[in-house]
Amino acid sequence: MADADHATQRPLANGKTRIDFQTDPARYRHWQLATDGAVATLTMDVDEKGALFEGYDLKLNSYDLGVDIELADALERLRFEHPEVRVVVLRSAKPRVFCAGANIRMLAGASHAHKVNFCKFTNETRNGIEDLSENSGIKSICAINGTAAGGGYELALATDHIMLVDDGSAAVSLPELPLLAVLPGTGGLTRVSDKRKVRRDHADVFCTTEEGVKGKRAVDWRLVDDAVAGSKFDEAVAARAKEFAAQSHRNGAGGGIKLTPLPRKFEADGVDYGTVSVEFERRGRTATVTLRGPAAPPPASADAMVALGANFWPLQLARELDDAILHIRLNELDVAAIVFKSSGDPGQVLAYDTFLDANKAHWLAREIRLLWKRVLKRVDLTSRSLVTLIEPGSCFAGTLAELPFASDRSYMLTPSLPSPASGEGLGRGRDGDNKPAAAIALGDVNFGAYPMANGLTRLECRFLASPAALDAAKAERGKMLDAERAQQLGLVTFAPDDIDWDDEVRVFLEERASFSPDALTGLEANLRFAGPETMESKIFARLTAWQNWIFQRPNAIGDEGALKRYGSGQKPVFDTRRV
Amino acid sequence: MADADHATQRPLANGKTRIDFQTDPARYRHWQLATDGAVATLTMDVDEKGALFEGYDLKLNSYDLGVDIELADALERLRFEHPEVRVVVLRSAKPRVFCAGANIRMLAGASHAHKVNFCKFTNETRNGIEDLSENSGIKSICAINGTAAGGGYELALATDHIMLVDDGSAAVSLPELPLLAVLPGTGGLTRVSDKRKVRRDHADVFCTTEEGVKGKRAVDWRLVDDAVAGSKFDEAVAARAKEFAAQSHRNGAGGGIKLTPLPRKFEADGVDYGTVSVEFERRGRTATVTLRGPAAPPPASADAMVALGANFWPLQLARELDDAILHIRLNELDVAAIVFKSSGDPGQVLAYDTFLDANKAHWLAREIRLLWKRVLKRVDLTSRSLVTLIEPGSCFAGTLAELPFASDRSYMLTPSLPSPASGEGLGRGRDGDNKPAAAIALGDVNFGAYPMANGLTRLECRFLASPAALDAAKAERGKMLDAERAQQLGLVTFAPDDIDWDDEVRVFLEERASFSPDALTGLEANLRFAGPETMESKIFARLTAWQNWIFQRPNAIGDEGALKRYGSGQKPVFDTRRV
Repeated sequence: MADADHATQRPLANGKTRIDFQTDPARYRHWQLATDGAVATLTMDVDEKGALFEGYDLKLNSYDLGVDIELADALERLRFEHPEVRVVVLRSAKPRVFCAGANIRMLAGASHAHKVNFCKFTNETRNGIEDLSENSGIKSICAINGTAAGGGYELALATDHIMLVDDGSAAVSLPELPLLAVLPGTGGLTRVSDKRKVRRDHADVFCTTEEGVKGKRAVDWRLVDDAVAGSKFDEAVAARAKEFAAQSHRNGAGGGIKLTPLPRKFEADGVDYGTVSVEFERRGRTATVTLRGPAAPPPASADAMVALGANFWPLQLARELDDAILHIRLNELDVAAIVFKSSGDPGQVLAYDTFLDANKAHWLAREIRLLWKRVLKRVDLTSRSLVTLIEPGSCFAGTLAELPFASDRSYMLTPSLPSPASGEGLGRGRDGDNKPAAAIALGDVNFGAYPMANGLTRLECRFLASPAALDAAKAERGKMLDAERAQQLGLVTFAPDDIDWDDEVRVFLEERASFSPDALTGLEANLRFAGPETMESKIFARLTAWQNWIFQRPNAIGDEGALKRYGSGQKPVFDTRRV
Repeated sequence: MADADHATQRPLANGKTRIDFQTDPARYRHWQLATDGAVATLTMDVDEKGALFEGYDLKLNSYDLGVDIELADALERLRFEHPEVRVVVLRSAKPRVFCAGANIRMLAGASHAHKVNFCKFTNETRNGIEDLSENSGIKSICAINGTAAGGGYELALATDHIMLVDDGSAAVSLPELPLLAVLPGTGGLTRVSDKRKVRRDHADVFCTTEEGVKGKRAVDWRLVDDAVAGSKFDEAVAARAKEFAAQSHRNGAGGGIKLTPLPRKFEADGVDYGTVSVEFERRGRTATVTLRGPAAPPPASADAMVALGANFWPLQLARELDDAILHIRLNELDVAAIVFKSSGDPGQVLAYDTFLDANKAHWLAREIRLLWKRVLKRVDLTSRSLVTLIEPGSCFAGTLAELPFASDRSYMLTPSLPSPASGEGLGRGRDGDNKPAAAIALGDVNFGAYPMANGLTRLECRFLASPAALDAAKAERGKMLDAERAQQLGLVTFAPDDIDWDDEVRVFLEERASFSPDALTGLEANLRFAGPETMESKIFARLTAWQNWIFQRPNAIGDEGALKRYGSGQKPVFDTRRV
């Protein structure tokens, strides 16, 4: 165990120094994205020599994070660049193999942190496939032409409809347990039990049978939807795709927008985007993420929004924030706390929310809202202490107000002089500057548009004990709330004045950096998600937590463990004592 | 990490060779149980020198498994021996200390398996306190006279009403994270967020503040219900107890029964109880638990049931099965699979279920049902492969049919000769014996009496995909179902005939013993609990899984970790990389 845990991250391939989440179809090495009217086809054709790290080949359509980054990118492009698409078919270009799942040598050599973050990202991508179907009108079909093992079958499970060639050898399987002594941790177990609702004893047999299940039994046990003879397979897949496309109400006539490359500049202690900047304070182990409000009022019409494309402020900000969060997660492991700040006019932020509300029937407005939903969920699931500092000149309003609610706590500056008329006067802040006093503002979006993984809005979750407090907050929509009022309403944690501000924030950040990172991860996983569980939240809590535990156990990752010994010809040796 | 994990279990104190879950008030060293009419008082007064293992003292009302076994016993006695009790007050006999939580030196020196099983048992006991309130009409009050730290506050959280002395020093706290780099894993985080519905940012502050929260803030933040001046504390507690007692509908007039010691005989390779026997096959790493059906028909009346007391068959069987499961969990770590078998007349088992149904308004009948519910949940949560073998002469009917449904899979013997009229003829089984052919039978109890932790019955969970299959099974209540019919209905996994039986069962058990015990634990935690989550299931999945992960992390249990270094004067050294 010590080996894997203390291992320096493997070197990235091709001399790269960080994992980059930005790509585009012209650069894909593992996927092909093609569209034909309403039907898109995503073909997996993994380049063996295209691994993200050194030290392993991606045989048999096995994948690593690099492969999944391309998949995630392709799905975003379907949303934004191809509004005409109503169904997506996932298939393989390799004969008799759909996908062999996560690359085992990659897993065996990866640090614990990389394994966990890799699984988290792939889970988020698969949840995004389900969101495509549920909210964007893009149904998904998985056409399995051969072996779909482990993560390969888990990818299929994320689609709406699984079609398997019935040729006496094609099979779906989850061989993680018998083969590697780990779990199908990319949603597999949860989707088998909760989405496909496979009978529990059948699931037990399936998940302990290395070779998997094929043909009629796979259909009978609900593991796949159709088993089709090879000669009729392509035809049957095409017919299903046509059928699903006809059912969709996606209305993207008029063409998509182009997801242009993000403007980014990496420096030693920060990253600069167009609307986001990230600043690392490495001694204190903090990353300050500052979001900039819109520079101009919202456009006059939906057409004007389409014309702005990727430069439309809410879209640009969401994409940049997403990239920044992923960069911190995967490349900046030593950051203890993410500090959210913002600058701008909160009234303008609300104006953009109002614009998106007014155009919510437009496909692009809907996709932008859905992207924000996913980005905010990504924030919820980021294993760092999250804190929002609401200072003079900030713009935590509407959509951006979700960040303090997504944070573990928030600090809002109380002006030392009586506050001028809400949001209009000058704060005469602690720096002697003339920024407007700190304000927070709510909008309709805070009461429904951005559910968390557990199905509740962040404010519903916050006020679980008191529907009255939720109603009181709702009644204040559109108002600029000063620190005193925000605290009365329960919207912020602490509201120190400028005499105490610096010390309180400093002590908090120092304290966070002094705690065990692991215990904080566990604390967050429990305190951030009060209330109900959904299939999605079960994947991130129940399944992931057990998988993370197993990823620490000598029976999997020890020198005699199954993950380490896989392919060596030596059998693993297990400590047989049950825990 | 290797240290703790490979450590031999610490020696038990006083030369004992196994952890015993049986005790009685005359033998308690840590608790006093007193009743005064409707009000019971459970006073915690832990004997420092009464630790279960060697190597630590139980200072400041800290506890280990031995202390919790007494608590669990006392709660059972309230249920069965004191039907007049309507409210229970938990308090401490130590000045200015309620309870310091789980003993840290015990935790620091315990094997991973013991830590995990210790937490599981204490969680089950605390869930039992909530069940007392919800289903038995015994409300609970926790009277906190001083410090309630960690597990001490978690115990309070399990009660209905928390009263704290308001004296400027008494406080509730969850200092696990700042002090020990672990989680409040005995339900603490879940109950703070989901039961007390503490606002998330307040919870974050509370759980990272070593000294905890006292007085008015503890009330404002919903951490306690009342903060009462010391001079009025006892009076206020008594008044609350009286108020709660008046609200209860518990109707236990007539006096309780005596929970007499279980008839038990431990041998090298087994345990013999009155109605249960356990047989260890150590080479194959299996434990066969055989349940014996009733020797006589149910009694004629509720009074006759009371007269039978602890010898009443359903009660005796439940208590013995519970003890056997706990024995295997804590003392027989090397057992890979528990094999359930039974012998007896399935018709008689149904007759007992019918008797309990007919008397369900009687306090004792209700308590027996509730005990079975808890024992079956204990089975669900037992981290071993569970299999039921339904053979000729067995009696898996009604309540006992929950065991195949609680199992990961079941095998039912199909007679090689045509089956005679259901349940009546002779099976002419594979041993040439004359036992009745294998039958399984359902009753009303299988459709509501025994919900799992997730709130579903085992059959609801089994047939999550198909309400029609659930209805079909329901329509067969009371019938003796042979293997063919049971398989049609989806009630059993496999139904081999006597030619294949031995091989199929043997191969299955050998396979289970060959798998990684850890991966199986994770598999079970996911596949056994399809469907919704409740606070209880969240405790066992989300919270426990993360705690188990942390219990493996060097930041907690490494030589420089917080748990190991606690009290040494040396600060822990953390690997600061977030996972």
